Amino acid sequence: MKVKGNHFETIWIHKDNPAIVQIIDQRFLPFDFRIEDLGSVEEMVTAIRDMHLRGAPLIGAAGALGMYLALAGAKGPLSEESVAERARFIKSSRPTAINLAWAVDRVCNAVATATDFNAKINLARQMALRIIQEERENCIRIGRHGVKLISEISRRKKGEPVNILTHCNAGWLACIDYGTATAPIYLAHDKGIAVRVLVDETRPRNQGARLTAWELHQHGVPYKLITDNAGGYMMQQGMVDMVIVGSDRTSPFGDVVNKIGTYLKALAAYDNGVPFYAALPSSTIDWELDEGASGTPIEERDGEELRYMEGLDHGRLTGVHIVSADTPVLNYGFDITPARLVTGIITERGITKANRTSILQLFPEKN
Amino acid sequence: MKVKGNHFETIWIHKDNPAIVQIIDQRFLPFDFRIEDLGSVEEMVTAIRDMHLRGAPLIGAAGALGMYLALAGAKGPLSEESVAERARFIKSSRPTAINLAWAVDRVCNAVATATDFNAKINLARQMALRIIQEERENCIRIGRHGVKLISEISRRKKGEPVNILTHCNAGWLACIDYGTATAPIYLAHDKGIAVRVLVDETRPRNQGARLTAWELHQHGVPYKLITDNAGGYMMQQGMVDMVIVGSDRTSPFGDVVNKIGTYLKALAAYDNGVPFYAALPSSTIDWELDEGASGTPIEERDGEELRYMEGLDHGRLTGVHIVSADTPVLNYGFDITPARLVTGIITERGITKANRTSILQLFPEKN
Repeated sequence: MKVKGNHFETIWIHKDNPAIVQIIDQRFLPFDFRIEDLGSVEEMVTAIRDMHLRGAPLIGAAGALGMYLALAGAKGPLSEESVAERARFIKSSRPTAINLAWAVDRVCNAVATATDFNAKINLARQMALRIIQEERENCIRIGRHGVKLISEISRRKKGEPVNILTHCNAGWLACIDYGTATAPIYLAHDKGIAVRVLVDETRPRNQGARLTAWELHQHGVPYKLITDNAGGYMMQQGMVDMVIVGSDRTSPFGDVVNKIGTYLKALAAYDNGVPFYAALPSSTIDWELDEGASGTPIEERDGEELRYMEGLDHGRLTGVHIVSADTPVLNYGFDITPARLVTGIITERGITKANRTSILQLFPEKN
Repeated sequence: MKVKGNHFETIWIHKDNPAIVQIIDQRFLPFDFRIEDLGSVEEMVTAIRDMHLRGAPLIGAAGALGMYLALAGAKGPLSEESVAERARFIKSSRPTAINLAWAVDRVCNAVATATDFNAKINLARQMALRIIQEERENCIRIGRHGVKLISEISRRKKGEPVNILTHCNAGWLACIDYGTATAPIYLAHDKGIAVRVLVDETRPRNQGARLTAWELHQHGVPYKLITDNAGGYMMQQGMVDMVIVGSDRTSPFGDVVNKIGTYLKALAAYDNGVPFYAALPSSTIDWELDEGASGTPIEERDGEELRYMEGLDHGRLTGVHIVSADTPVLNYGFDITPARLVTGIITERGITKANRTSILQLFPEKN
């Protein structure tokens, strides 16, 4: 996608120095657009854990490139056990998103096919780039499938803007490009279908206010920022035509683990007959997960994410404690939206109902 | 309630100067405890509209004292039309809370019974003080009725802490003393029943984080601050035993108009079998309201409430723009929780189911 007119993706290998991975450091958005250089697996793990980057598909890509950095940066050949240890290290940095483990395992499996260490490094790089290419294409395909839903509503509304609510950032910043939840929106906008996005602020890290709003603004898509509390009322008032969110982990039964608060929007959508879609590449499906996604580890994160708020004071990036620093906090990162509340799942292979039979029809190889 | 060991109510006539009404200026909490002097109806309207004070019962009391100030501060006797004009001026300052119109009308009706202007001033003061006294007693009674619900859960949990989620501030800061939603909680705590309050942050004005957390801390009630997004997940996980909220306007059918986001919590409570109660003095019941509370005016407030966040920077009270100042925002103040999601309503006369028949059994004079 474009940033001030120039095309960017969210992660790439430095074009002149293959020992460096570069990312858009999302911590400073929307106030400052910074590129960060990551030269080691430790730096990549810090970037994932401290959310210099986030979003399930991007976390997967970052994990894969983290494995590449682990090998490329090693002082000498690594034992099988050392490779496995680094894989565990990366996987532990964000336990909820399934893509991280999935991508790291793919690189490990690729690497295991070679014996020569330089060949292992090459295979790690190739697999990481392949994952990136796949996720880029997945988002394009999600966009093509999902845009049909938007254009159908647009037709029904005789061209009046289609009001789409989204939660958190499942935009291109969460992916390589295009986004998951946003891919159908960008495509609709580019095709001239009138859309208006209602962007949930998404406390505590405000990814909606900071990232989704910024993305949409850069691309010229009309939007309004709303509080996380507002979506229910707006659905009651008929101000929301559909909801599209992303997913950090999806059960094969159609349960969606996503940023905390998603479940509340799904309840409100269900209560008001508003269609609720999750857009996700199949890499976020955890095929081992039980019905209800009950085995998913839900991150409990630092209370400072609630207590402290970054922002601009007369143009200077700073922050304030919005409550006193010793305020006791509980801070969970994700919730689980049960399949019964999900109208459909938009994947790279098409749109499916949120149940095991329908999902397996799209992914028969998983049967 | 106590503030640093001293007893305070939220509003009172200055003890040495009857031309002045004093309030706790809630804009600076929890960072600074300030008393504001209000010497005219204009200053009172500013205080109500700009939320130096808020909360349905307190807004009612403030409106009544605003009428008193309008009369007491007049340069000479006011015509009937001038009194009515000032009443309309006060009522327009917060359209959603029914208590404001209710209290202002009570003062107007009292004033109309006298012809002498000094007698009118006296009647206005007396009625305002009577409303204050009634609301104080209402909260005590709400506490006595509501605490039975908490002690029942405590018994069932064999004394394990009762986890109570609340949204916004329906505490003593929203009332004269004790609070509505908090009255049963304070009483339970004072009786030695173990409670733990989950305090919704309550965007955009953060009344939970700023006011409810401060109140509970002052009184020594254990609590945890959570995001507005978190309650659903915590209910899914069995971490919430009951929800108690306040109400800004209640239909005689049991629909509850309250701070935006309340509806989302009610949906989650219903979905997880968690009892959901609204605690309210009958002054918040709008007996004219239709089923569904559909005629309620819902305030759309300034977008700066979302964009700008106050807080402390190294001990200094300041603020930051958390998104750029030109970010387009939609900011609604309230939503409507339909009666079907409300387990019960705790009033000064007892606990009732959220339907017209049960409510009218408690208030037969409204039949």
